[in-house]
Amino acid sequence: MPRNPVWKAIAKTLETEIAERLYPPGARLPTEAALSDRFGVNRHTVRRALSDLSERGLVRSRRGAGVFVDIVPTDYALGRRVRFHQNLRAAGHLPEKRVLRIETRPARRAEAEALDLDRESEVVVYEGLSLSDGIAIAHFESVFPAARLPGLAAALAETASVTEALARAGVADYVRAETRISAERASATQALHLGLRDGEPVLCTISRNETPEGMPVERGTTWFAGDRVALVHAG
Amino acid sequence: MPRNPVWKAIAKTLETEIAERLYPPGARLPTEAALSDRFGVNRHTVRRALSDLSERGLVRSRRGAGVFVDIVPTDYALGRRVRFHQNLRAAGHLPEKRVLRIETRPARRAEAEALDLDRESEVVVYEGLSLSDGIAIAHFESVFPAARLPGLAAALAETASVTEALARAGVADYVRAETRISAERASATQALHLGLRDGEPVLCTISRNETPEGMPVERGTTWFAGDRVALVHAG
Repeated sequence: MPRNPVWKAIAKTLETEIAERLYPPGARLPTEAALSDRFGVNRHTVRRALSDLSERGLVRSRRGAGVFVDIVPTDYALGRRVRFHQNLRAAGHLPEKRVLRIETRPARRAEAEALDLDRESEVVVYEGLSLSDGIAIAHFESVFPAARLPGLAAALAETASVTEALARAGVADYVRAETRISAERASATQALHLGLRDGEPVLCTISRNETPEGMPVERGTTWFAGDRVALVHAG
Repeated sequence: MPRNPVWKAIAKTLETEIAERLYPPGARLPTEAALSDRFGVNRHTVRRALSDLSERGLVRSRRGAGVFVDIVPTDYALGRRVRFHQNLRAAGHLPEKRVLRIETRPARRAEAEALDLDRESEVVVYEGLSLSDGIAIAHFESVFPAARLPGLAAALAETASVTEALARAGVADYVRAETRISAERASATQALHLGLRDGEPVLCTISRNETPEGMPVERGTTWFAGDRVALVHAG
């Protein structure tokens, strides 16, 4: 009987390490040279193992950048009721928000228009990261009308949840009035936050939430890592 | 009285040429050196004129690439009824479709699943470009169940319009069942079709249209130039 080829054993080892998340989705595998050293084989054998993983959809090779653990995009439902935690849980993911900044400042022009505020009015700014299963999938910055939502900044700081903080500030329910979606290159900061390379594509959404009675309560800008999220709209 | 500075006269000339679409939205202006030659001034003066146009939002400078006529993105409405021609006309644009390819071939797996077909079934493939005011905004490839839609290929070739061709093939109405949206880098082919540089971001949508009774009639993949289109979803 022929021996199990060495490349298969290497592929199997790497597959197990990917499954155990030693190399999580989106991570770069060590270089061919490093894997050659580690397994004590020549590069041809390493390449055969990587190509096997690639054919089975476990990794993806990016020219000039290396070999990366493949990512199954997180589905993110668009619609009249958009809730980050519910959305991710419904798709079988573990949601988490990480606060980068909460502050109060005067509204910018586009923000004042979206929230139906005077230019002098203040907004609460909430900047953070959205994670799915521990992986950052989006960077967001939301602004809220400060005067309409007493105690919001403190509630955001405590809960990190927009839905929960709005409820504490007296908004029991809210709906999505509009979402605008475009594609951009990640800025240097976004690339850093999302673990992307500079210039990689991001989905940019600008949204407006309001109460069922039509009072604007949030204008949010979100940059989703292009390869980690699919926005899904059921017609 | 001080003379009108030269840079202002140059800015005014370029502004007029942009308005007259000698340099249409998305076009690259000549280099600083070329403009210096043309206007018989030094580069400093050209730079002052370009910076004036940039401050007024008429052009945008991209590091290392040049100065480009700015683009106001075309709004593209998502919802239960998505119609390319209606969408663009409603937003005040002139819509046009350009056929790249119409052919009939066996369905790929994902296509067969979306259209509820056997693997052996054939689909009509319609590949083309969507234009807004004469500028390519999207590259698309749609597939249709051939057996369910007699005469569709001929109708597409004749009309270039999906709505019109489906009507001739017996589908009086259809609705959008789902849209999935992600961000990608433009492939070399897409960059060529859309006049983008290699690797620039594109919005990729995969959609399914069906009759009001739920019979799938189209699976479409569309790559929108990231800076020329904003997908808009009214919640």
